[in-house]
Amino acid sequence: MEQTTEIRMVLVEPSHPGNIGAAARAMKTMALKHLYVVNPKRYPDPQALWRAAGGDDVLEACRVCDSLSQAIDDCQWVVGTSARQRRIPWPVLTPEALADEVRERPGQRIAVLFGREDSGLTNEELQRCNAHIEIPANPVYPVLNVAMAVQVICYALYRGMGDPVQPLVWDRPPAPLATVEALLARFDQVLTATGFINAEQPGQTMTRIRRLLARTQLDETEVGVLHGILTHIERPPPH
Amino acid sequence: MEQTTEIRMVLVEPSHPGNIGAAARAMKTMALKHLYVVNPKRYPDPQALWRAAGGDDVLEACRVCDSLSQAIDDCQWVVGTSARQRRIPWPVLTPEALADEVRERPGQRIAVLFGREDSGLTNEELQRCNAHIEIPANPVYPVLNVAMAVQVICYALYRGMGDPVQPLVWDRPPAPLATVEALLARFDQVLTATGFINAEQPGQTMTRIRRLLARTQLDETEVGVLHGILTHIERPPPH
Repeated sequence: MEQTTEIRMVLVEPSHPGNIGAAARAMKTMALKHLYVVNPKRYPDPQALWRAAGGDDVLEACRVCDSLSQAIDDCQWVVGTSARQRRIPWPVLTPEALADEVRERPGQRIAVLFGREDSGLTNEELQRCNAHIEIPANPVYPVLNVAMAVQVICYALYRGMGDPVQPLVWDRPPAPLATVEALLARFDQVLTATGFINAEQPGQTMTRIRRLLARTQLDETEVGVLHGILTHIERPPPH
Repeated sequence: MEQTTEIRMVLVEPSHPGNIGAAARAMKTMALKHLYVVNPKRYPDPQALWRAAGGDDVLEACRVCDSLSQAIDDCQWVVGTSARQRRIPWPVLTPEALADEVRERPGQRIAVLFGREDSGLTNEELQRCNAHIEIPANPVYPVLNVAMAVQVICYALYRGMGDPVQPLVWDRPPAPLATVEALLARFDQVLTATGFINAEQPGQTMTRIRRLLARTQLDETEVGVLHGILTHIERPPPH
Protein backbone atom coordinates (compact mmCIF):
# COMPACT_ATOMS: atom_id res chain seq x y z
CA MET A 1 0.00 0.00 0.00
CA GLU A 2 1.21 3.47 -0.80
CA GLN A 3 1.92 5.70 2.17
CA THR A 4 0.80 9.29 2.15
CA THR A 5 3.44 11.97 2.34
CA GLU A 6 2.76 14.45 5.14
CA ILE A 7 3.87 17.99 4.40
CA ARG A 8 3.89 20.35 7.37
CA MET A 9 4.11 24.09 7.18
CA VAL A 10 5.76 25.27 10.38
CA LEU A 11 5.55 28.95 11.37
CA VAL A 12 8.23 29.76 13.92
CA GLU A 13 7.26 32.48 16.42
CA PRO A 14 4.96 34.57 14.23
CA SER A 15 4.06 37.95 15.75
CA HIS A 16 0.89 38.71 13.82
CA PRO A 17 -2.12 36.40 14.11
CA GLY A 18 -3.27 37.63 10.70
CA ASN A 19 -0.30 35.87 9.14
CA ILE A 20 -1.27 32.57 10.75
CA GLY A 21 -4.75 32.82 9.28
CA ALA A 22 -3.45 33.90 5.88
CA ALA A 23 -1.03 30.96 5.87
CA ALA A 24 -3.91 28.58 6.62
CA ARG A 25 -5.89 29.98 3.70
CA ALA A 26 -2.87 29.80 1.39
CA MET A 27 -2.39 26.15 2.33
CA LYS A 28 -6.04 25.34 1.81
CA THR A 29 -6.02 26.80 -1.71
CA MET A 30 -3.16 24.44 -2.54
CA ALA A 31 -4.67 21.38 -0.84
CA LEU A 32 -2.24 21.25 2.07
CA LYS A 33 -3.50 20.83 5.62
CA HIS A 34 -0.81 20.30 8.26
CA LEU A 35 -0.11 23.66 9.89
CA TYR A 36 2.19 23.92 12.95
CA VAL A 37 2.83 27.12 14.87
CA VAL A 38 5.72 27.42 17.32
CA ASN A 39 5.28 29.94 20.14
CA PRO A 40 2.95 32.41 18.44
CA LYS A 41 2.81 35.82 20.10
CA ARG A 42 -0.98 36.15 19.81
CA TYR A 43 -3.02 33.07 19.08
CA PRO A 44 -5.89 32.23 18.99
CA ASP A 45 -7.08 35.60 17.76
CA PRO A 46 -10.07 36.81 15.72
CA GLN A 47 -7.62 38.30 13.16
CA ALA A 48 -6.35 34.81 12.38
CA LEU A 49 -9.83 33.46 11.84
CA TRP A 50 -10.82 36.39 9.66
CA ARG A 51 -7.79 36.07 7.39
CA ALA A 52 -8.18 32.28 7.18
CA ALA A 53 -11.48 32.70 5.29
CA GLY A 54 -12.28 29.32 3.71
CA GLY A 55 -9.11 27.84 5.19
CA ASP A 56 -10.67 27.89 8.64
CA ASP A 57 -10.54 24.09 8.87
CA VAL A 58 -6.76 24.17 8.36
CA LEU A 59 -6.48 26.86 11.02
CA GLU A 60 -8.63 24.97 13.50
CA ALA A 61 -6.57 21.81 13.05
CA CYS A 62 -3.28 23.67 13.50
CA ARG A 63 -0.94 22.48 16.24
CA VAL A 64 0.55 25.02 18.59
CA CYS A 65 3.98 23.88 19.89
CA ASP A 66 6.26 25.10 22.68
CA SER A 67 9.44 24.41 20.76
CA LEU A 68 10.67 23.77 17.25
CA SER A 69 11.70 20.27 18.31
CA GLN A 70 8.14 19.45 19.25
CA ALA A 71 7.02 20.42 15.76
CA ILE A 72 9.66 18.58 13.74
CA ASP A 73 11.36 15.83 15.77
CA ASP A 74 9.34 13.07 14.14
CA CYS A 75 9.94 14.42 10.63
CA GLN A 76 12.36 12.71 8.30
CA TRP A 77 13.24 15.66 6.11
CA VAL A 78 13.17 19.33 7.04
CA VAL A 79 13.77 22.43 4.98
CA GLY A 80 13.83 26.07 6.06
CA THR A 81 13.11 29.23 4.13
CA SER A 82 15.93 31.72 4.13
CA ALA A 83 16.69 34.96 2.34
CA ARG A 84 20.25 35.38 3.48
CA GLN A 85 23.39 33.65 2.38
CA ARG A 86 24.97 32.13 5.49
CA ARG A 87 28.58 32.04 6.52
CA ILE A 88 28.59 28.28 6.17
CA PRO A 89 26.55 27.66 3.03
CA TRP A 90 23.88 24.98 3.08
CA PRO A 91 22.30 23.23 0.08
CA VAL A 92 19.74 25.66 -1.37
CA LEU A 93 16.62 24.73 -3.33
CA THR A 94 14.15 26.79 -5.33
CA PRO A 95 10.46 26.16 -4.59
CA GLU A 96 10.25 24.07 -7.78
CA ALA A 97 13.28 21.98 -6.81
CA LEU A 98 11.65 21.50 -3.40
CA ALA A 99 8.60 20.03 -5.12
CA ASP A 100 10.87 17.61 -7.00
CA GLU A 101 12.56 16.56 -3.76
CA VAL A 102 9.23 16.05 -2.02
CA ARG A 103 8.03 13.84 -4.86
CA GLU A 104 11.08 11.68 -4.38
CA ARG A 105 10.22 11.13 -0.70
CA PRO A 106 6.85 9.39 -0.78
CA GLY A 107 5.46 8.45 2.61
CA GLN A 108 7.82 10.69 4.57
CA ARG A 109 6.94 13.36 7.09
CA ILE A 110 8.37 16.58 5.72
CA ALA A 111 8.47 20.00 7.37
CA VAL A 112 8.94 23.41 5.76
CA LEU A 113 9.98 26.09 8.27
CA PHE A 114 9.09 29.77 8.02
CA GLY A 115 10.76 32.30 10.31
CA ARG A 116 9.75 35.36 12.26
CA GLU A 117 8.34 38.39 10.43
CA ASP A 118 11.25 40.60 11.41
CA SER A 119 14.23 38.27 11.64
CA GLY A 120 13.45 34.98 9.91
CA LEU A 121 14.94 31.76 11.23
CA THR A 122 17.99 31.75 13.49
CA ASN A 123 21.22 30.17 12.34
CA GLU A 124 20.63 27.37 14.81
CA GLU A 125 17.18 26.69 13.37
CA LEU A 126 18.54 26.77 9.84
CA GLN A 127 21.23 24.29 10.79
CA ARG A 128 18.55 21.81 11.82
CA CYS A 129 17.42 21.72 8.19
CA ASN A 130 18.47 19.27 5.49
CA ALA A 131 18.28 22.04 2.93
CA HIS A 132 17.30 25.68 2.66
CA ILE A 133 14.68 27.14 0.34
CA GLU A 134 15.20 30.45 -1.35
CA ILE A 135 12.34 32.03 -3.22
CA PRO A 136 13.93 33.78 -6.19
CA ALA A 137 13.11 37.47 -5.70
CA ASN A 138 14.11 41.06 -6.32
CA PRO A 139 17.65 41.42 -4.94
CA VAL A 140 16.81 44.97 -3.90
CA TYR A 141 13.96 43.78 -1.65
CA PRO A 142 13.55 40.01 -1.47
CA VAL A 143 11.50 40.11 1.75
CA LEU A 144 8.19 38.33 1.17
CA ASN A 145 5.60 38.51 3.90
CA VAL A 146 5.64 35.15 5.69
CA ALA A 147 2.14 34.12 4.56
CA MET A 148 3.04 35.15 1.01
CA ALA A 149 6.06 32.88 1.22
CA VAL A 150 3.77 30.06 2.38
CA GLN A 151 1.54 30.75 -0.65
CA VAL A 152 4.41 30.63 -3.13
CA ILE A 153 5.87 27.44 -1.64
CA CYS A 154 2.46 25.74 -1.50
CA TYR A 155 1.76 26.78 -5.07
CA ALA A 156 5.06 25.29 -6.24
CA LEU A 157 4.32 22.10 -4.31
CA TYR A 158 0.82 21.86 -5.76
CA ARG A 159 2.14 22.42 -9.27
CA GLY A 160 4.93 19.94 -8.76
CA MET A 161 2.64 17.19 -7.51
CA GLY A 162 1.20 16.99 -11.00
CA ASP A 163 3.27 14.30 -12.62
CA PRO A 164 4.62 11.61 -10.34
CA VAL A 165 8.29 10.75 -10.57
CA GLN A 166 9.22 7.11 -10.06
CA PRO A 167 9.91 7.02 -6.32
CA LEU A 168 13.26 5.75 -5.17
CA VAL A 169 13.00 2.52 -3.21
CA TRP A 170 15.41 2.57 -0.29
CA ASP A 171 16.28 -0.48 1.77
CA ARG A 172 16.08 1.17 5.18
CA PRO A 173 13.66 3.69 6.69
CA PRO A 174 14.90 7.28 6.83
CA ALA A 175 15.90 8.34 10.33
CA PRO A 176 13.64 10.82 12.12
CA LEU A 177 15.20 14.17 13.01
CA ALA A 178 15.31 13.45 16.74
CA THR A 179 17.48 10.40 16.02
CA VAL A 180 19.88 12.47 13.95
CA GLU A 181 20.02 15.14 16.65
CA ALA A 182 20.90 12.49 19.22
CA LEU A 183 23.67 11.24 16.92
CA LEU A 184 25.04 14.75 16.54
CA ALA A 185 25.01 15.26 20.30
CA ARG A 186 26.98 12.04 20.58
CA PHE A 187 29.52 13.20 17.96
CA ASP A 188 30.02 16.39 19.95
CA GLN A 189 30.36 14.53 23.23
CA VAL A 190 32.80 11.88 21.99
CA LEU A 191 34.94 14.22 19.88
CA THR A 192 35.19 16.66 22.77
CA ALA A 193 35.93 13.95 25.35
CA THR A 194 38.75 12.59 23.21
CA GLY A 195 40.13 16.05 22.58
CA PHE A 196 39.48 16.06 18.82
CA ILE A 197 37.36 19.12 19.47
CA ASN A 198 38.90 21.61 21.86
CA ALA A 199 36.23 22.32 24.49
CA GLU A 200 37.64 25.83 24.97
CA GLN A 201 37.67 26.67 21.27
CA PRO A 202 35.28 24.28 19.52
CA GLY A 203 35.48 26.09 16.15
CA GLN A 204 33.31 25.00 13.23
CA THR A 205 33.89 21.24 13.33
CA MET A 206 30.43 20.34 14.65
CA THR A 207 28.73 22.69 12.20
CA ARG A 208 30.59 20.99 9.36
CA ILE A 209 29.63 17.52 10.57
CA ARG A 210 26.03 18.71 10.98
CA ARG A 211 25.90 20.08 7.47
CA LEU A 212 27.46 16.94 6.04
CA LEU A 213 24.87 14.70 7.71
CA ALA A 214 22.02 17.11 6.87
CA ARG A 215 22.77 16.79 3.17
CA THR A 216 22.54 13.02 3.13
CA GLN A 217 19.29 12.29 4.95
CA LEU A 218 20.63 9.35 6.94
CA ASP A 219 18.75 6.09 7.13
CA GLU A 220 18.41 4.23 10.41
CA THR A 221 21.11 1.67 9.70
CA GLU A 222 23.59 4.41 8.87
CA VAL A 223 22.82 6.08 12.18
CA GLY A 224 23.57 2.75 13.81
CA VAL A 225 26.91 2.39 12.00
CA LEU A 226 27.97 5.90 13.01
CA HIS A 227 26.97 5.29 16.63
CA GLY A 228 29.03 2.13 16.51
CA ILE A 229 32.07 4.03 15.30
CA LEU A 230 31.66 6.66 18.00
CA THR A 231 31.34 4.04 20.71
CA HIS A 232 34.49 2.52 19.33
CA ILE A 233 36.33 5.83 19.58
CA GLU A 234 35.17 6.26 23.14
CA ARG A 235 36.25 2.81 24.26
CA PRO A 236 39.09 1.73 22.00
CA PRO A 237 39.79 -2.00 22.09
CA PRO A 238 42.89 -3.09 24.03
CA HIS A 239 45.97 -3.18 21.80
CA MET B 1 17.28 50.29 -28.61
CA GLU B 2 15.23 47.80 -26.67
CA GLN B 3 11.97 49.06 -25.29
CA THR B 4 10.99 48.19 -21.75
CA THR B 5 7.89 46.12 -21.25
CA GLU B 6 5.51 47.72 -18.77
CA ILE B 7 3.55 45.25 -16.67
CA ARG B 8 0.69 46.72 -14.65
CA MET B 9 -1.09 45.01 -11.82
CA VAL B 10 -4.63 46.38 -11.73
CA LEU B 11 -6.78 45.85 -8.62
CA VAL B 12 -10.44 46.35 -9.47
CA GLU B 13 -12.56 47.74 -6.62
CA PRO B 14 -10.71 46.22 -3.68
CA SER B 15 -12.59 46.52 -0.36
CA HIS B 16 -9.70 46.14 2.07
CA PRO B 17 -6.83 48.62 2.04
CA GLY B 18 -4.60 45.94 3.56
CA ASN B 19 -4.81 44.04 0.28
CA ILE B 20 -3.62 47.06 -1.68
CA GLY B 21 -0.57 47.37 0.55
CA ALA B 22 0.11 43.64 0.47
CA ALA B 23 -0.12 43.66 -3.33
CA ALA B 24 2.41 46.51 -3.47
CA ARG B 25 4.81 44.53 -1.30
CA ALA B 26 4.29 41.37 -3.37
CA MET B 27 5.09 43.33 -6.54
CA LYS B 28 8.18 44.89 -5.01
CA THR B 29 9.58 41.49 -4.01
CA MET B 30 9.30 40.43 -7.64
CA ALA B 31 10.70 43.65 -9.10
CA LEU B 32 7.41 44.94 -10.54
CA LYS B 33 6.33 48.51 -9.94
CA HIS B 34 3.24 49.61 -11.85
CA LEU B 35 0.25 49.30 -9.53
CA TYR B 36 -3.18 50.59 -10.55
CA VAL B 37 -6.23 50.61 -8.30
CA VAL B 38 -9.74 51.11 -9.69
CA ASN B 39 -12.30 52.60 -7.29
CA PRO B 40 -10.90 51.35 -4.01
CA LYS B 41 -13.37 51.42 -1.12
CA ARG B 42 -10.86 52.78 1.40
CA TYR B 43 -7.70 54.35 0.16
CA PRO B 44 -5.37 55.89 1.21
CA ASP B 45 -5.40 54.15 4.56
CA PRO B 46 -2.76 53.38 7.21
CA GLN B 47 -3.51 49.66 6.82
CA ALA B 48 -2.30 49.82 3.24
CA LEU B 49 0.94 51.49 4.21
CA TRP B 50 1.56 49.05 7.04
CA ARG B 51 1.06 45.99 4.88
CA ALA B 52 3.19 47.46 2.08
CA ALA B 53 6.30 47.29 4.31
CA GLY B 54 9.32 47.71 2.00
CA GLY B 55 7.01 48.02 -1.01
CA ASP B 56 5.95 51.48 0.14
CA ASP B 57 7.48 53.08 -2.96
CA VAL B 58 5.28 50.92 -5.20
CA LEU B 59 2.27 51.86 -3.10
CA GLU B 60 3.07 55.57 -3.21
CA ALA B 61 3.45 55.50 -6.97
CA CYS B 62 0.17 53.65 -7.47
CA ARG B 63 -2.46 55.25 -9.69
CA VAL B 64 -6.00 55.44 -8.44
CA CYS B 65 -8.49 55.34 -11.33
CA ASP B 66 -12.22 56.06 -11.61
CA SER B 67 -12.83 53.36 -14.15
CA LEU B 68 -11.24 50.24 -15.57
CA SER B 69 -10.93 51.98 -18.94
CA GLN B 70 -8.79 54.65 -17.40
CA ALA B 71 -6.43 52.00 -16.10
CA ILE B 72 -6.07 49.92 -19.23
CA ASP B 73 -7.09 51.84 -22.34
CA ASP B 74 -3.51 52.53 -23.39
CA CYS B 75 -2.43 48.92 -22.86
CA GLN B 76 -1.72 46.59 -25.76
CA TRP B 77 -2.48 43.34 -24.05
CA VAL B 78 -4.73 42.70 -21.07
CA VAL B 79 -5.34 39.55 -19.06
CA GLY B 80 -7.72 38.95 -16.15
CA THR B 81 -7.54 36.49 -13.26
CA SER B 82 -10.51 34.24 -12.93
CA ALA B 83 -11.35 31.21 -10.83
CA ARG B 84 -14.57 30.26 -12.58
CA GLN B 85 -15.09 28.75 -15.96
CA ARG B 86 -17.28 31.16 -17.92
CA ARG B 87 -20.26 30.44 -20.05
CA ILE B 88 -18.37 31.58 -23.11
CA PRO B 89 -14.91 30.05 -22.76
CA TRP B 90 -11.95 32.35 -23.20
CA PRO B 91 -8.33 31.42 -23.78
CA VAL B 92 -6.97 30.44 -20.36
CA LEU B 93 -3.33 30.67 -19.32
CA THR B 94 -1.48 29.38 -16.29
CA PRO B 95 0.79 31.89 -14.55
CA GLU B 96 3.79 30.26 -16.22
CA ALA B 97 2.18 30.48 -19.67
CA LEU B 98 1.45 34.14 -18.93
CA ALA B 99 5.16 34.69 -18.34
CA ASP B 100 5.90 33.10 -21.73
CA GLU B 101 3.34 35.35 -23.42
CA VAL B 102 4.77 38.44 -21.77
CA ARG B 103 8.25 37.54 -22.94
CA GLU B 104 6.95 37.38 -26.47
CA ARG B 105 5.60 40.94 -26.23
CA PRO B 106 8.70 43.06 -25.62
CA GLY B 107 8.06 46.77 -25.30
CA GLN B 108 4.29 46.42 -24.84
CA ARG B 109 2.16 47.82 -22.07
CA ILE B 110 0.50 44.83 -20.44
CA ALA B 111 -2.14 44.78 -17.70
CA VAL B 112 -3.10 41.96 -15.34
CA LEU B 113 -6.51 42.47 -13.72
CA PHE B 114 -7.48 41.23 -10.26
CA GLY B 115 -11.11 41.30 -9.13
CA ARG B 116 -13.04 42.14 -6.01
CA GLU B 117 -12.41 40.14 -2.82
CA ASP B 118 -15.93 38.73 -2.78
CA SER B 119 -16.95 38.47 -6.42
CA GLY B 120 -13.88 38.73 -8.64
CA LEU B 121 -14.15 40.36 -12.05
CA THR B 122 -17.50 40.77 -13.79
CA ASN B 123 -18.20 39.02 -17.06
CA GLU B 124 -17.98 42.36 -18.82
CA GLU B 125 -14.56 43.05 -17.34
CA LEU B 126 -13.35 39.57 -18.22
CA GLN B 127 -14.53 40.06 -21.77
CA ARG B 128 -12.27 43.06 -22.11
CA CYS B 129 -9.32 40.71 -21.66
CA ASN B 130 -7.23 39.07 -24.35
CA ALA B 131 -6.90 36.00 -22.18
CA HIS B 132 -7.78 34.79 -18.71
CA ILE B 133 -5.36 33.56 -16.08
CA GLU B 134 -6.23 30.68 -13.84
CA ILE B 135 -3.98 29.86 -10.92
CA PRO B 136 -4.04 26.07 -10.59
CA ALA B 137 -5.49 25.40 -7.14
CA ASN B 138 -7.42 23.05 -4.88
CA PRO B 139 -10.74 22.39 -6.66
CA VAL B 140 -12.43 22.23 -3.25
CA TYR B 141 -11.36 25.79 -2.41
CA PRO B 142 -9.48 27.61 -5.17
CA VAL B 143 -10.10 31.08 -3.73
CA LEU B 144 -6.78 32.83 -3.19
CA ASN B 145 -6.79 36.12 -1.38
CA VAL B 146 -6.33 38.86 -4.00
CA ALA B 147 -2.90 39.94 -2.78
CA MET B 148 -1.83 36.28 -2.65
CA ALA B 149 -2.90 35.95 -6.29
CA VAL B 150 -0.79 39.01 -7.10
CA GLN B 151 2.16 37.36 -5.35
CA VAL B 152 1.81 34.10 -7.28
CA ILE B 153 1.44 35.88 -10.64
CA CYS B 154 4.36 38.20 -9.94
CA TYR B 155 6.47 35.26 -8.85
CA ALA B 156 5.70 33.39 -12.08
CA LEU B 157 6.50 36.51 -14.11
CA TYR B 158 9.76 37.04 -12.27
CA ARG B 159 10.74 33.41 -12.76
CA GLY B 160 9.75 33.52 -16.41
CA MET B 161 11.76 36.64 -17.11
CA GLY B 162 14.84 34.50 -17.03
CA ASP B 163 16.37 36.07 -13.98
CA PRO B 164 19.14 33.63 -13.37
CA VAL B 165 18.79 31.58 -10.21
CA GLN B 166 21.66 32.56 -7.97
CA PRO B 167 24.18 29.74 -8.19
CA LEU B 168 25.06 28.26 -4.84
CA VAL B 169 28.43 29.45 -3.64
CA TRP B 170 30.01 26.81 -1.47
CA ASP B 171 32.76 27.79 0.92
CA ARG B 172 35.07 24.90 0.05
CA PRO B 173 35.90 23.16 -3.22
CA PRO B 174 34.24 19.79 -3.77
CA ALA B 175 36.59 16.90 -3.22
CA PRO B 176 37.77 15.04 -6.31
CA LEU B 177 36.71 11.41 -6.52
CA ALA B 178 40.22 10.11 -5.93
CA THR B 179 40.31 11.98 -2.62
CA VAL B 180 37.04 10.39 -1.57
CA GLU B 181 38.32 6.95 -2.59
CA ALA B 182 41.42 7.49 -0.48
CA LEU B 183 39.22 8.46 2.45
CA LEU B 184 37.12 5.32 2.01
CA ALA B 185 40.25 3.17 1.91
CA ARG B 186 41.32 4.81 5.14
CA PHE B 187 37.93 4.12 6.74
CA ASP B 188 38.29 0.47 5.79
CA GLN B 189 41.83 0.26 7.07
CA VAL B 190 41.22 1.97 10.41
CA LEU B 191 37.89 0.28 11.16
CA THR B 192 39.38 -3.10 10.36
CA ALA B 193 42.57 -2.47 12.37
CA THR B 194 40.53 -1.51 15.42
CA GLY B 195 38.23 -4.50 15.01
CA PHE B 196 35.08 -2.48 14.28
CA ILE B 197 34.97 -4.36 11.01
CA ASN B 198 35.70 -8.06 11.29
CA ALA B 199 38.39 -8.81 8.70
CA GLU B 200 37.08 -12.37 8.29
CA GLN B 201 33.46 -11.30 7.80
CA PRO B 202 33.47 -7.66 6.79
CA GLY B 203 29.73 -7.57 6.01
CA GLN B 204 28.10 -4.48 4.49
CA THR B 205 29.57 -1.76 6.73
CA MET B 206 31.93 -0.33 4.13
CA THR B 207 29.24 -0.41 1.45
CA ARG B 208 26.96 1.57 3.73
CA ILE B 209 29.65 4.14 4.51
CA ARG B 210 30.45 4.42 0.82
CA ARG B 211 26.82 5.01 -0.09
CA LEU B 212 26.43 7.58 2.68
CA LEU B 213 29.45 9.59 1.50
CA ALA B 214 28.46 9.20 -2.15
CA ARG B 215 25.15 10.93 -1.51
CA THR B 216 26.68 14.07 -0.02
CA GLN B 217 29.40 15.10 -2.47
CA LEU B 218 31.98 15.87 0.20
CA ASP B 219 33.97 19.08 0.13
CA GLU B 220 37.70 19.11 0.88
CA THR B 221 37.39 20.40 4.42
CA GLU B 222 34.89 17.67 5.25
CA VAL B 223 37.32 15.08 3.94
CA GLY B 224 39.91 16.64 6.23
CA VAL B 225 37.63 16.47 9.26
CA LEU B 226 36.84 12.80 8.60
CA HIS B 227 40.54 11.98 8.13
CA GLY B 228 41.18 13.72 11.43
CA ILE B 229 38.58 11.60 13.20
CA LEU B 230 40.02 8.41 11.70
CA THR B 231 43.54 9.33 12.75
CA HIS B 232 42.14 9.97 16.19
CA ILE B 233 40.62 6.50 16.30
CA GLU B 234 43.87 4.97 15.19
CA ARG B 235 45.99 6.74 17.78
CA PRO B 236 43.75 7.58 20.72
CA PRO B 237 45.21 10.22 23.02
CA PRO B 238 46.65 8.93 26.31
CA HIS B 239 43.99 8.79 29.01
